[in-house]
Amino acid sequence: MQPGDGAAASLDCYVFIGSTYGFLTAHRAASFAAAHGVRLDWKPFSLRTLLREQDSSPFLGRPAKLAYMWRDIERRAGRFGIPFARPSRYPVDGQERANHVATLAAREGWCADFLREAYRAWFLEDRDPGDPAALALVLERLGRPAEVAMRAEAPDVVAAYVANTDRARALGIFGAPDFVRGDEVFWGDDRLEDAIAWCLRGA
Amino acid sequence: MQPGDGAAASLDCYVFIGSTYGFLTAHRAASFAAAHGVRLDWKPFSLRTLLREQDSSPFLGRPAKLAYMWRDIERRAGRFGIPFARPSRYPVDGQERANHVATLAAREGWCADFLREAYRAWFLEDRDPGDPAALALVLERLGRPAEVAMRAEAPDVVAAYVANTDRARALGIFGAPDFVRGDEVFWGDDRLEDAIAWCLRGA
Repeated sequence: MQPGDGAAASLDCYVFIGSTYGFLTAHRAASFAAAHGVRLDWKPFSLRTLLREQDSSPFLGRPAKLAYMWRDIERRAGRFGIPFARPSRYPVDGQERANHVATLAAREGWCADFLREAYRAWFLEDRDPGDPAALALVLERLGRPAEVAMRAEAPDVVAAYVANTDRARALGIFGAPDFVRGDEVFWGDDRLEDAIAWCLRGA
Repeated sequence: MQPGDGAAASLDCYVFIGSTYGFLTAHRAASFAAAHGVRLDWKPFSLRTLLREQDSSPFLGRPAKLAYMWRDIERRAGRFGIPFARPSRYPVDGQERANHVATLAAREGWCADFLREAYRAWFLEDRDPGDPAALALVLERLGRPAEVAMRAEAPDVVAAYVANTDRARALGIFGAPDFVRGDEVFWGDDRLEDAIAWCLRGA
């Protein structure tokens, strides 16, 4: 698919609650894309699975890079006017429950809201977003019934999550978030602007 | 050091000829910084030494990330209007001769020009910029005597290169290029805008 091919402007957003830079995306992508008339299709996927397959741990044993990552997110949050606190919990969502809820939310059209609240709970309240109590609180804040967390473990939701992961693997994804148009992958919250411009170019 | 402290606006630019994203920086940083009234102080350093110490190979055994890296640079070169070709040689400058010349050039005030030409030779002409013949050609194009390549191997130049590397290590640097103001490190060509804004904030 080429930019400006006449299709409605939309981007697939591959997200994983557990990616730290996803905090920025959860807070700014929906409004930025909307301001440019671009629709976002959220695709929660298991980055953890892909990193395991690729034998990759971006920060494990790399303290300098880890320290830089937190500072970089803090500075960029400041730039975008996003309240930030550095969480003590990392990694999170070991059972990928929050990611399953995000998958259900994507199907039902409230994924952007869920991501923002899940990341707020993680960063600003220092909770593990996959912890059942934290998940229940996030759902309550969104006015969603608590049973959503159970429905998100149903085979069809998990299958959709696995399908997103398979597609991410096929796209050559190795980190998150990613903004994808056709086969064109833009990796990282800092490529949001490039991805939106790519979408709109020639349109 | 804080932004807006009244000092002349300047950024230290830690570069390593061998970093692929340095291609973008070599082509755009000097003019972008000048347009914002920010002075760049070039600091060539041995990223290879730091990566070896950190037991890190960002792309070794990571074909998906490697493929993405080239495509990302190509796309961003397009965005900035920089002619791009993907070089076949990588890594390059095994003896770090080109980096030594860059160090001498930084002392003498022609580092930005040298970086641009060295990267052009690497990317657009598919030469190893550390190859003596390629180095001689680059120097000739810049109107510099061929003996510069020999002077760049003198102990005082190499010592300056090592000092830059020591400072980079102390700053927690783990990749290149980096834009540094005081202790504040902005890693990657894609942080140039953030670094310039940081420099100017409150000024």
